[in-house]
Amino acid sequence: MKKFLIQSILTLFIINNWAQSQKIRPREMGIEIGLFQTGKWNAITDVYGVKVGHETVITGNNVRTGVTIILPHGENLFENKVMAAIHVTNGFGKALGFTQVEELGTIETPIGLTNTLNIFNVANSIIDYMIMQNPDIRSVNPVVGETNDSGLNDIQGRHVKKNHVIKAIKNAKTGPVIEGSVGAGTGTRAFGYKGGIGTSSRILPKEAGGFTVGVLVQTNFGGSLMINGAPVGRELKKSPFSSNIPYDQDEGSCMIVIATDAPLSNRNLKRMAKRVDHALGSVGAYSPNGSGDYAIIFSTSKPQSSDKKSFTRKEIKNNSMNGLFMATVEATEEAIINSLFMAETVSSKYGKMEELPIDETMKILKKYRALNWNKKLYPWKK
Amino acid sequence: MKKFLIQSILTLFIINNWAQSQKIRPREMGIEIGLFQTGKWNAITDVYGVKVGHETVITGNNVRTGVTIILPHGENLFENKVMAAIHVTNGFGKALGFTQVEELGTIETPIGLTNTLNIFNVANSIIDYMIMQNPDIRSVNPVVGETNDSGLNDIQGRHVKKNHVIKAIKNAKTGPVIEGSVGAGTGTRAFGYKGGIGTSSRILPKEAGGFTVGVLVQTNFGGSLMINGAPVGRELKKSPFSSNIPYDQDEGSCMIVIATDAPLSNRNLKRMAKRVDHALGSVGAYSPNGSGDYAIIFSTSKPQSSDKKSFTRKEIKNNSMNGLFMATVEATEEAIINSLFMAETVSSKYGKMEELPIDETMKILKKYRALNWNKKLYPWKK
Amino acid sequence: MKKFLIQSILTLFIINNWAQSQKIRPREMGIEIGLFQTGKWNAITDVYGVKVGHETVITGNNVRTGVTIILPHGENLFENKVMAAIHVTNGFGKALGFTQVEELGTIETPIGLTNTLNIFNVANSIIDYMIMQNPDIRSVNPVVGETNDSGLNDIQGRHVKKNHVIKAIKNAKTGPVIEGSVGAGTGTRAFGYKGGIGTSSRILPKEAGGFTVGVLVQTNFGGSLMINGAPVGRELKKSPFSSNIPYDQDEGSCMIVIATDAPLSNRNLKRMAKRVDHALGSVGAYSPNGSGDYAIIFSTSKPQSSDKKSFTRKEIKNNSMNGLFMATVEATEEAIINSLFMAETVSSKYGKMEELPIDETMKILKKYRALNWNKKLYPWKK
Amino acid sequence: MKKFLIQSILTLFIINNWAQSQKIRPREMGIEIGLFQTGKWNAITDVYGVKVGHETVITGNNVRTGVTIILPHGENLFENKVMAAIHVTNGFGKALGFTQVEELGTIETPIGLTNTLNIFNVANSIIDYMIMQNPDIRSVNPVVGETNDSGLNDIQGRHVKKNHVIKAIKNAKTGPVIEGSVGAGTGTRAFGYKGGIGTSSRILPKEAGGFTVGVLVQTNFGGSLMINGAPVGRELKKSPFSSNIPYDQDEGSCMIVIATDAPLSNRNLKRMAKRVDHALGSVGAYSPNGSGDYAIIFSTSKPQSSDKKSFTRKEIKNNSMNGLFMATVEATEEAIINSLFMAETVSSKYGKMEELPIDETMKILKKYRALNWNKKLYPWKK
Repeated sequence: MKKFLIQSILTLFIINNWAQSQKIRPREMGIEIGLFQTGKWNAITDVYGVKVGHETVITGNNVRTGVTIILPHGENLFENKVMAAIHVTNGFGKALGFTQVEELGTIETPIGLTNTLNIFNVANSIIDYMIMQNPDIRSVNPVVGETNDSGLNDIQGRHVKKNHVIKAIKNAKTGPVIEGSVGAGTGTRAFGYKGGIGTSSRILPKEAGGFTVGVLVQTNFGGSLMINGAPVGRELKKSPFSSNIPYDQDEGSCMIVIATDAPLSNRNLKRMAKRVDHALGSVGAYSPNGSGDYAIIFSTSKPQSSDKKSFTRKEIKNNSMNGLFMATVEATEEAIINSLFMAETVSSKYGKMEELPIDETMKILKKYRALNWNKKLYPWKK
Repeated sequence: MKKFLIQSILTLFIINNWAQSQKIRPREMGIEIGLFQTGKWNAITDVYGVKVGHETVITGNNVRTGVTIILPHGENLFENKVMAAIHVTNGFGKALGFTQVEELGTIETPIGLTNTLNIFNVANSIIDYMIMQNPDIRSVNPVVGETNDSGLNDIQGRHVKKNHVIKAIKNAKTGPVIEGSVGAGTGTRAFGYKGGIGTSSRILPKEAGGFTVGVLVQTNFGGSLMINGAPVGRELKKSPFSSNIPYDQDEGSCMIVIATDAPLSNRNLKRMAKRVDHALGSVGAYSPNGSGDYAIIFSTSKPQSSDKKSFTRKEIKNNSMNGLFMATVEATEEAIINSLFMAETVSSKYGKMEELPIDETMKILKKYRALNWNKKLYPWKK
Repeated sequence: MKKFLIQSILTLFIINNWAQSQKIRPREMGIEIGLFQTGKWNAITDVYGVKVGHETVITGNNVRTGVTIILPHGENLFENKVMAAIHVTNGFGKALGFTQVEELGTIETPIGLTNTLNIFNVANSIIDYMIMQNPDIRSVNPVVGETNDSGLNDIQGRHVKKNHVIKAIKNAKTGPVIEGSVGAGTGTRAFGYKGGIGTSSRILPKEAGGFTVGVLVQTNFGGSLMINGAPVGRELKKSPFSSNIPYDQDEGSCMIVIATDAPLSNRNLKRMAKRVDHALGSVGAYSPNGSGDYAIIFSTSKPQSSDKKSFTRKEIKNNSMNGLFMATVEATEEAIINSLFMAETVSSKYGKMEELPIDETMKILKKYRALNWNKKLYPWKK
Repeated sequence: MKKFLIQSILTLFIINNWAQSQKIRPREMGIEIGLFQTGKWNAITDVYGVKVGHETVITGNNVRTGVTIILPHGENLFENKVMAAIHVTNGFGKALGFTQVEELGTIETPIGLTNTLNIFNVANSIIDYMIMQNPDIRSVNPVVGETNDSGLNDIQGRHVKKNHVIKAIKNAKTGPVIEGSVGAGTGTRAFGYKGGIGTSSRILPKEAGGFTVGVLVQTNFGGSLMINGAPVGRELKKSPFSSNIPYDQDEGSCMIVIATDAPLSNRNLKRMAKRVDHALGSVGAYSPNGSGDYAIIFSTSKPQSSDKKSFTRKEIKNNSMNGLFMATVEATEEAIINSLFMAETVSSKYGKMEELPIDETMKILKKYRALNWNKKLYPWKK
């Protein structure tokens, strides 16, 4: 009884703390990543039709996990599959559905993110949802990614259940996306601090096609954090291979979901997804052995027409891909930074993962002149 | 009540039929595939230490499915991972665990086979088993393959449960392997007939290293069946693209598990796995769009020594791989043929899939002189 | 002087022998591979616009080699690139241009085939040709394949020169294609006999889209020859791993070029190219270690429109690919058989490679009832 | 005559300029990349046995090119092949030999770097060299990379000839490596400035195995240069997508050769090579469409023993790879920076490519506190 009381109070405290938090997104504090402009919400939902839903699962002193759902569009996905591709940076992970996406070039379900051992429950629940929506379905390919939140969560318990998944799908919405220690990011950590969900977007200039690129990440990986070139990880003494962190102990993973409205072939979607590695490099990651780093990309662009046997599609030419490549790097980089700035400290019986110390970080950014880059260097940009 | 009675009788009838069946393996009837000799059991279990377990799930008039487990060895697999690789012939499938096998080069769990929509239940149950065996586990990569048995089975019901998986693991054994409409092969079909589980093995001659190669397949695919060159599919009027079978309707899948005791690098394991495509070609398959055809390969060979940071391993040279390549082709071909000869007719409320008509098939083989090849052509071979 | 005389006589003798030969194509002798109908020429040139050119280089008693050129169309290829993909069955080869075809999805030059060590000369000569045609070119990606003809040819001499390549390109034509010991097939061998160039085509039925698939092969590989299921290699005592052929000595390669007029994405082109492995299996090949087996595929279909930044293309749906997959298997199989039937004995100071004994082979085919399959089994087919 | 005189004077001027230059390597000016220590020469030649040779080809006002050779060791490479792998970041390039390296896992020739259209001449010349050394060779797989120097060089002329290649091989040596506008880097450009050859190395701490990792790059690519986080490209107004550089015009390529003495499987060599993408990201590259970015990696570690059919090798475990991954990122990053600092202005009839303005760059680095990182932040490091 006493134990239950403590757990309840702890839970209340955490939830309360959640509500109170007044985290400010990095860009509002002058951290401008890249040159392109962001979309309205600076989120994956800036790609028209994309929706995001979170279910955070926190109970007692041991459960700190959840599920995040990305809906490529609001229609029946099995009937209206989206063109898709995947890129594996480092395949130490359990991500599901990849061989079929590679082979057929499409995603046909909501995309799920969760913790490592919960991935099969989530996939099974997505099947439940797909059967509800498509009663005659006999084969369907859930795409689910994961990172390992066992530092804060009872991962063996697989606490994300069918009701959480269905709720996350049903509550998914456009507009602003909650970031930080939420949904699949509830128990993750990155660069020695609390990680979580982050998102960002870019709008290409008209001359480059005017397309939107949106990225959502679940950060749970290591390295020596760089923000706009400032060596934050070094200054905060959180660098792998420095004297105080043992070798071979820099584990984690990063799941990256990319959406775009640009009409792209599977081949160019995959090329675009590969550019997340440049973004990982620019934030100071190096994908250590234990880091299962994956990118899932889809395009919301529809075929111009279709008959029984064929589609007619528009498709961006190879040599017009540069803007989309750069937008992918920028949005991925910013989504990662956002996940760190927005994540709040989480503790459980397994330990405590502190949030990034914002004031100290801002001082470091100032010291290294990493703020207001565009204002200073490209005053002609808004 | 009446319905229950009919279901019970049907179930009894099926089970009874099972027990009665006196199927004879093709080789005993003179169907000699290839030149190499088979192992003692002509089964994947001829590779020392490998075990196979089936759980067949048949209830009422709607459930015709199951799970088949392959244990690379009898020890704790998480502690003693086996070198492994995968090959994707046609990735229209949900097979699990592949990116990690590719990245890390190992399998660390029992390998499961089941039906398409049941794959996540089976993976989750394998996690349960792994946790029982390794209480501190936080991340583990189940490798599970599937084919679609919805022609005979209530696939949406996902009737393979944790108890079936655990039982299949615990009951897995060396020695002869039951083939046909059993375990993961209970509801599958191939070449227009009942498919299922088949297995075969080859022993390389001493001069070629003396290694054993074992293959187990779950057949559920189409094409125009060829047995030792005899056009069985054509003679039986079961050929895709012939006048009586519509285009675009030749679906299915083939899961292929290969075991060897040869000490091989991940690179040469993968090269070996790729040779299943030659076997698929030689039995008249062509991997149509809907066929999720995958090969999973592992070696039971252990490192010669290991310290904290490294292994010392023996590894067959590239130019000594030919025997292993050929053995893979031969054993895969024979395992597929075995699955067809051993499978018995299965029916359910969804339909009935007849077994291969053995007498008629033998007549065709005789007509095309496809029997006793080695006796005739290589009389010096035993 | 005397040596020169002998060489000249030998050369004359060979050329003369060439002209005399009255080889008959297998299909005309009742060897019907598969179910689909062939195109007019039963050649890769049945795909509208495709041209083939050979230059055979035979001099003295040591040079038995050549070059074969496939032109995807008659226009400037650099300006009108064709959609393309590649598939590597076994990458023990020097084939050129593959990473760019994979990345950009196009072929922009004539495709060359030649011998292993001559491949760089041929690529350089294709660059010469491309510069002639496109004086401002600064980067261009020649696609060239090779097999090793050193059993009959002075391969170190690299006797295929610029003039041969340019001549093969300029003389390339539509219509019937010369097969056998010609062009890049002059010095190759397969299944223990003289190999060479072979070609075949298939026309899909109207209901399956009516597309044409053409294949051209350069055969130089081993295995135990199967023709329509008849164990020709075994009967002729030419099987690897049989008692009289040592292990580890079954080298060679197979280059396969596939053309189609079907409008396909790079992804589905690659899937189609992968089906050559099924064809290799059905003729009794197993891609031994030394066999560099590659497929190059292109589509002659043009975009429906294009602007500065994008194309609009028609693209066959995944589930309408089956006919194209099967046509690829059938045409590849027949092209390989054609190369063997059409190749004539070639000898040089390095040895002699006998042609397939046609009469004996036909007897074997008759014995195993491998002739006139369609007439017998599908009398309703023309 | 007059033209000849001008050309001669120009040539003399350039060569003279070369000799005069007193470029200082970045590290000596306080630019410390990463945490690990460099080897003695901070060059790929710190890996025991590795040699580098350059031939610079400058004639008249039009030829500004060359060849760079990396010898994995000083013995006969065909007889003593090295374990190797490749990684393709963006395959818009003509790099040679890759399918065989992937398939067989070895490099068996000197590795060449040159310009795009010269690659086949260089490969052919490497064959000449291999035949000289191994008179019985019938098949050999030259590995050659390239970048496009047509901005400064008569690339169509293919001015690198056999004598240059043989000379570069014969003159290859251990010890310090000349960097900048030399060999294959003579005519390249990067980040809006003169690029070229750069090299760097890292020594892992004893606890992490004490291995050496060396990298050599041929830089010819775009992006917005970052050095230790300082936005040098932005400050110098050399950023793609900023107002003054048009979209779709950020072409080039980067060839990266990595050497290590760590005993690694092909699988872990490939994983290590993939980490160059993180390095590309950290210097501000994003691999635009036209950038053919490739990494070639080899290990000089020898098998512990070998018999006719097998090797016995030591092999680092997966979870001891982190140090090697990080060393690859650091050394690649520094090699790129070195190529820029060491490259001198080159001009020709095609244009002029200015070298990086060192003083200005150093001022930017100071402004952004990018100097002497380790001294400041890790004073306990030497």
